[in-house]
Amino acid sequence: MRKIKDNLDPPKILVLGFAIIILIGATLLTLPIATEDGQGLSFLNALFTATSATCVTGLIVVDTGDTFSMFGELVILSLIQVGGLGFMTFATLLFILLGKKISFKERLLLKEAFNNITFAGMVRLVKRILIFTAIIEFVGGSILAIRFSFDMPAAKAIYYGFFHAISNFNNAGFDLMGEFRSLTHYVDDPTVVLTVCSLITLGGLGFVVMNELFEYRQTRQLSVHTKAVLTTTLILTIGATVLIFLFEYGNNKTLGPLSVAGKSLGALFHAVTPRTAGANTLPMADLTHSTLFLTIILMYIGAGSGSTAGGIKITTFAVLMATVWSQFKGKEDVVLFKRRIVMETILKAFTVATSGALIVMIVTILLSITEKGHVFLMYLFEAASAFGTVGLSMGLTPELSPIGRLLIILTMFTGRLGPLTLAYAITKRQKQEAYHHPKGNIMIG
Amino acid sequence: MRKIKDNLDPPKILVLGFAIIILIGATLLTLPIATEDGQGLSFLNALFTATSATCVTGLIVVDTGDTFSMFGELVILSLIQVGGLGFMTFATLLFILLGKKISFKERLLLKEAFNNITFAGMVRLVKRILIFTAIIEFVGGSILAIRFSFDMPAAKAIYYGFFHAISNFNNAGFDLMGEFRSLTHYVDDPTVVLTVCSLITLGGLGFVVMNELFEYRQTRQLSVHTKAVLTTTLILTIGATVLIFLFEYGNNKTLGPLSVAGKSLGALFHAVTPRTAGANTLPMADLTHSTLFLTIILMYIGAGSGSTAGGIKITTFAVLMATVWSQFKGKEDVVLFKRRIVMETILKAFTVATSGALIVMIVTILLSITEKGHVFLMYLFEAASAFGTVGLSMGLTPELSPIGRLLIILTMFTGRLGPLTLAYAITKRQKQEAYHHPKGNIMIG
Ligand SMILES: [K+]
Ligand SMILES: [K+]
Repeated sequence: MRKIKDNLDPPKILVLGFAIIILIGATLLTLPIATEDGQGLSFLNALFTATSATCVTGLIVVDTGDTFSMFGELVILSLIQVGGLGFMTFATLLFILLGKKISFKERLLLKEAFNNITFAGMVRLVKRILIFTAIIEFVGGSILAIRFSFDMPAAKAIYYGFFHAISNFNNAGFDLMGEFRSLTHYVDDPTVVLTVCSLITLGGLGFVVMNELFEYRQTRQLSVHTKAVLTTTLILTIGATVLIFLFEYGNNKTLGPLSVAGKSLGALFHAVTPRTAGANTLPMADLTHSTLFLTIILMYIGAGSGSTAGGIKITTFAVLMATVWSQFKGKEDVVLFKRRIVMETILKAFTVATSGALIVMIVTILLSITEKGHVFLMYLFEAASAFGTVGLSMGLTPELSPIGRLLIILTMFTGRLGPLTLAYAITKRQKQEAYHHPKGNIMIG
Repeated sequence: MRKIKDNLDPPKILVLGFAIIILIGATLLTLPIATEDGQGLSFLNALFTATSATCVTGLIVVDTGDTFSMFGELVILSLIQVGGLGFMTFATLLFILLGKKISFKERLLLKEAFNNITFAGMVRLVKRILIFTAIIEFVGGSILAIRFSFDMPAAKAIYYGFFHAISNFNNAGFDLMGEFRSLTHYVDDPTVVLTVCSLITLGGLGFVVMNELFEYRQTRQLSVHTKAVLTTTLILTIGATVLIFLFEYGNNKTLGPLSVAGKSLGALFHAVTPRTAGANTLPMADLTHSTLFLTIILMYIGAGSGSTAGGIKITTFAVLMATVWSQFKGKEDVVLFKRRIVMETILKAFTVATSGALIVMIVTILLSITEKGHVFLMYLFEAASAFGTVGLSMGLTPELSPIGRLLIILTMFTGRLGPLTLAYAITKRQKQEAYHHPKGNIMIG
């Protein structure tokens, strides 16, 4: 790490690091021992699966449970865990384990990786990330293992319990159930639904929020960031649950046949999973247009910044809405929880949202050229799912053409790292201008 | 006008004015003499048609040529002309004709109506608007009348020529061809295609741009606004023509059977019409998904601010792209044509774009609930067409349920006046805060 060249700035390192992990994973998945048929995967499919796992997406061209050997499944699980926690955490961990001090340059690098606000407590944070993750995955895994033990042998139940706990806490969306079924068998099972929803939501808060909540007993205060994440998560979860409950109430292929309690569990799961887990308990292709389009919007929004989620992030969405509201009211300041949001943050939020929307639109148009014979909504859905690193699909993924697969690989990569990080990595940052152009007036709206 | 209460600020007057014109138009269209069958239209359909005409949209629940008597058609044409020029121009005209002086309050009101930048030359501008309009509509109407005279009797050709010139210069999208055909018979006719494309484009520039171009001989300079409108119009028109040419090249139901010249004319027309005319020469339902989605994006963007166009407007789009670009490059200033765009303008642009996108998304979801049995793309297309006051449709409009009709009426109204104007009209503007909250940090993207 100490030999890193000075011109490798944090965004470049992050992009390269992810690319290297993906390539290693893809190579491992082409090995004969990776698949049950002893053939290994083709390189394109291996690259797709490794990208999907490392970018904690969950889009799959081959069914995970049916195709891979346990070795292959454990490679995928490792990629999920490495991608989810972020390889930067691991790099820091190595430094801590080796007892080395962290230089300012490497702290800067970490700052970019976690998109964190202050340098303070960075090392403590990383330790806590690992402890939090271990505890949450252990508790979630144990509950799921016990539940699964009613349906399968104990050893398999333990393996399945922990695989699905890790996959869902990292919002990875991979599952072992086979036949592209995901968790549809457990649509009205309270234990599975509530455990998995909790894992997904906790993973989507982001480590900074978890850390603040952990320290709340001492500090007795929460930052505006944490308040925004928690409030928006609550509003989106409740709002989406109610809407999906209404949209699917009379749909005989989804919530229709279930009891009111079952309908509620089904609606809750489908409200939580687009941000940005990717497991599903309802058959995706049978959902109403209203639910599918709402799902697309939720996938685009995603969850917490610096979490395992993709999309534009929930705080970006909160800043957007607060700005629109204050503009509508003719106010000068944009205020969230009695704190003024600075102009720099607002511009960044709109830039992320606009470029994210552009990416989804361009990918949708490209998919509608490279793929044939599907309804338009499937292309839009697939593009939003890849950009939001969600992993839900109306069924297009396994049928993608080779060019379509490459396109989705690139979209997942862009969605995970974020358009701004990628832009910083490939463009040369300019120095601040000494000269400012005179103002120009332009009519808007 | 002089009795207007002080609490009726410009946005409220604009909203009320449009509403009154629409209601008068709707009432006229319910009269027995308005339709060929002597029955008059139902009030809902009359309201829909009057809103569509006044908001220069062109979405139609009944075919204009087949349904209306000449009286009905002239009511529609009058609503188009009043809506297109803006009733504010007419109000000013009345003042000029009556030789009265214009008070500061009424100038303010006009400023809001045209979204103009300076007070200077307001009266001169209004005179010119009327002269420009008369000249352009006369030239366009004459060319079309001559062309149509080869296909129909002279009197009818003159009527058709001027009706379509007025409709297209005002970007209204209404036509008299019957059977919801629009201009599909003239897909590869250079005279019709080039004349109508010119009328649409000129109408979409906005009066401020036209005025600056007119004065260019003396001033020898163009504002950043005019440069932005002209450049973005050129880029979007050429870019969209090339893409549509490629997307539809092999489509046997659209451009496929035409010669290369015919294909070019067909692609050009379909590139121009979504911003925001609404006439079509290609059968909408047969276009490829790629073209339809591109059309949706173009409809959302619209044309010039202060023109007859709807949507978020082309300058809003230009400011968005310039901001994203400067953020990607890590620049501090957003610069267009060597002029710095102030933060207030940027915030307004993002607010218009975000609220426009929200409106399109919410209307799409509502349509997918109120309407049944269509593919999703039809709902998204209809919502974007109404918000952009475009008037293109994949065929949903005549099949809309009563609630769907009301929804589209509201969307056209919102799209024409703009989300910000409507928000200003219904919310109470707050005074600038004396107290500023302390800054708060929040993670983005
Ligand atoms: K995911
Ligand atoms: K129109």
